[in-house]
Amino acid sequence: MSETSLPLYEAMSTLRAVRRLREDPIPDDVLKRILQAATWGPSGGNLQPWRLVVVRDAVLKQELGRLYKPLWERYAAGHRQGLAGLEGEALAKQERMLAAADHLGDHLGAAPVILVACFNPRLMAITDAELDRPSVVGGGSVYPAIQNLMLACVNEGVGCTLTTLLCYAEDQVRNLLEIPGDWYTCAFIPLGYPVGKGHGPISRRPMEKMCYGDRFGDPL
Amino acid sequence: MSETSLPLYEAMSTLRAVRRLREDPIPDDVLKRILQAATWGPSGGNLQPWRLVVVRDAVLKQELGRLYKPLWERYAAGHRQGLAGLEGEALAKQERMLAAADHLGDHLGAAPVILVACFNPRLMAITDAELDRPSVVGGGSVYPAIQNLMLACVNEGVGCTLTTLLCYAEDQVRNLLEIPGDWYTCAFIPLGYPVGKGHGPISRRPMEKMCYGDRFGDPL
Repeated sequence: MSETSLPLYEAMSTLRAVRRLREDPIPDDVLKRILQAATWGPSGGNLQPWRLVVVRDAVLKQELGRLYKPLWERYAAGHRQGLAGLEGEALAKQERMLAAADHLGDHLGAAPVILVACFNPRLMAITDAELDRPSVVGGGSVYPAIQNLMLACVNEGVGCTLTTLLCYAEDQVRNLLEIPGDWYTCAFIPLGYPVGKGHGPISRRPMEKMCYGDRFGDPL
Repeated sequence: MSETSLPLYEAMSTLRAVRRLREDPIPDDVLKRILQAATWGPSGGNLQPWRLVVVRDAVLKQELGRLYKPLWERYAAGHRQGLAGLEGEALAKQERMLAAADHLGDHLGAAPVILVACFNPRLMAITDAELDRPSVVGGGSVYPAIQNLMLACVNEGVGCTLTTLLCYAEDQVRNLLEIPGDWYTCAFIPLGYPVGKGHGPISRRPMEKMCYGDRFGDPL
């Protein structure tokens, strides 16, 4: 909860999904710094083809939570089936993640703030739209802003996690939040002060496995 | 070019597209800090469904530049037609952007590094894939990492800009960089020390126009 900032690399290397959130409100000045960080995000042609709906109304949040719970339960059932081959620490790690995500499934609506990110594809040049494979390029004008706001959450001591399951209920979310027809949803981010330790150490594949030199698969 | 980091909000608020790049090489330690920042990026299920091909080979870069130039020229022609209604400073600003982007169109292959980001949709849960509108959610597991690396560029004094036009030439890029069939391209980021001032002040819509309270369009 600070007007100063963490060193960049410290914020990046401690941004983790925080799924157990306290119900205490987030002060307006803290929330505004988080939203300001999103606004700084780059986008194609600087058209900023996204908007954030900052949901704090208790009834609206409860309704989002009611929509989220069965979507999470369905997703979690599939995910749990995929764990059959795991054991030891790898399994324990997945179980801890699932326990926290189950908690979020039951309590999304109790987060003090739920951010709902919307986008307008007419403001995007989606260069992979016509390719015969899933398109992702539209996200290049939205998720940089989302990453900025999540990094700002680290700075402000606010827990957050990026969820997208509510896209399956986009029509209901549209009605609930009065989203016009040319805008769609792409991220749902509950915010709140952490119940536990919050942001901290993260686990990632080593750089050498993620980055190649000159040709795909060649060592850097 | 520093092992320390800028304050988070300073990096975010000065990340701009830098399109005029010097040909001097980027030292390995600087490049590795930039790539490390990408690796820290969050992704759905922490599956990190992206890889970066770090292209430094002169012949490969020239070929990417050769593929990029006509795509940029076609895009720029369309964009210039859309400027018909502008005048004064708004027009001048667009003209400056286009001049820098024309320069990049002619010189992409001369950048010391071109990063080519690839993704594998089989490692993504794309929750908006079946909706009757453009899908963007897959980008939520790639562009946070890309934003991290671009923020790291600010920290390191390295110019960068996110481009996606080469998706139109994905087949040729695939052959050139030996990208396997289940991976696709989603970002092409030339890196280099800036010819001019590099990163600095940015122009964005005010937060009040980007963020709404409880319902789309309502004031925060």
